[in-house]
Amino acid sequence: MKVLLIGSTGDIGRAALEALSPSHEIVEVSRRGTHINADISDRDSIVEMYQKIGKVDAVVCAAGNVHFGPLSEFTHDQFMFGLTDKVMGQINVVLEGLNWVNDGGSFTLTSGVLDRDPIRSGAGAATANGALGGFVVGSAIEMPRGIRINVVSPGLLDVSEARYGAFFPGHERVSAQRVGLAYIKSVEGPGTGKVIIVE
Amino acid sequence: MKVLLIGSTGDIGRAALEALSPSHEIVEVSRRGTHINADISDRDSIVEMYQKIGKVDAVVCAAGNVHFGPLSEFTHDQFMFGLTDKVMGQINVVLEGLNWVNDGGSFTLTSGVLDRDPIRSGAGAATANGALGGFVVGSAIEMPRGIRINVVSPGLLDVSEARYGAFFPGHERVSAQRVGLAYIKSVEGPGTGKVIIVE
Repeated sequence: MKVLLIGSTGDIGRAALEALSPSHEIVEVSRRGTHINADISDRDSIVEMYQKIGKVDAVVCAAGNVHFGPLSEFTHDQFMFGLTDKVMGQINVVLEGLNWVNDGGSFTLTSGVLDRDPIRSGAGAATANGALGGFVVGSAIEMPRGIRINVVSPGLLDVSEARYGAFFPGHERVSAQRVGLAYIKSVEGPGTGKVIIVE
Repeated sequence: MKVLLIGSTGDIGRAALEALSPSHEIVEVSRRGTHINADISDRDSIVEMYQKIGKVDAVVCAAGNVHFGPLSEFTHDQFMFGLTDKVMGQINVVLEGLNWVNDGGSFTLTSGVLDRDPIRSGAGAATANGALGGFVVGSAIEMPRGIRINVVSPGLLDVSEARYGAFFPGHERVSAQRVGLAYIKSVEGPGTGKVIIVE
C-alpha cells in the first residue's frame, strides 16, 4: 500500500515507520527537514500536502502537540492549544483527506495513555486524547467507501525515556516495536472505530 | 450543601434538579430566563456568575452545545464549536471555579453516550464527550483541597424522546430519575475522576 505517514521523525512516527516500511511504500511528512513538509495545525498546509502527494491507501498521523502544566496554572489558551493542535489538527487530516484515500483505505491517528492513566500536569493531554478516542468512534460509522479509522494510544515509549521518563513515575514503558505493531494492526487489520491501546 | 446547577432548565439539568433539590440548597443558573443568567461559552460570564453566587459546595454543569451533521459535510468551524462550547465551556467552569468551591466539594460535568454508542451525524458530540471524559480523569488527580470531579454520561433521556428520538434508533432510553441518581452519586459519593455512565 501507499501509506502517508505524518510526523515520521518523532519517536512514535519512527516506530510506525520501522513497522510499516518493510511492506509498504511510505511517504514521509514532517514539519521541517528533508521530507515533504506540512504542519497539521494549518489547514492550508494539510490541503497542499494532499495535493502534492495525491491518492493514498492509508494515512497515519503521529503528529500533534499539547501544553503540559499544573492544573492550577492551566489557562483557557493552554487548553485550547491542545484542542486545536493535537485534536483539530488530526481531525482536519481526516476531513481534508476523505477524498484522497482510496476505497477500503484507512486513517490511523495517535493519542496516548493519559486519559486512562493520568500524570500530574497532563490534564491537557488527557483531554485531547479523550477527544480523539471519541472522534474515531463517532466518525467510523460515517466513513465512505469502506474507509476505516482508528487511533493508536500508546504508553510512554522506551525510546522517549530520557526526555519524558521523569513525568511518568512507575508507568510501564512500551517498546517502539510493540507500538509499531499497533500501526500495522490499524493499517492492515479489519478494525474500525477502535482505540488501539499499547501499554 | 449549597449546589450551583448550571443549565437547570434543560432536560438533563431538570433531572439533576429534581434529584438534588430535596437534600440541597440549589442555585439555578441558565442562559436566559428567571434564574441567575450565565453563558458558559463566555469566560467573563462564568467569572461574573461565581462572583454573584459566592462560595459553593458543589458545581453541577449540565450545559454545552455541539453541532450535529453528516461527517462528509462537517467543517473545521463546526467541530471547533463543540470543542469551544461544550468542552471549553465546562472546563472553564472548573478552572474559574477552583477558588469558589469549598474544601471537599465537587465538580460534576455532563457529556453523553455518543463516544461509546455513536449515531449518524454525531461525530462532533462524540469528540466533545470523549474530551470531557479525558479531562475529568486528567484533572481529578490535581484537584486541590479534596475537591472531586466527575462527568455524568447519560444515554438519551426519556423526556427528550419527542425532540431527539429519531436520531437514536434502538438506543434504550434512560429515565430522568436514573440520570438524577448519577448526579447524586457524583455530588454526595466518594468517587473522583469517573465517567458515570447511565444507559
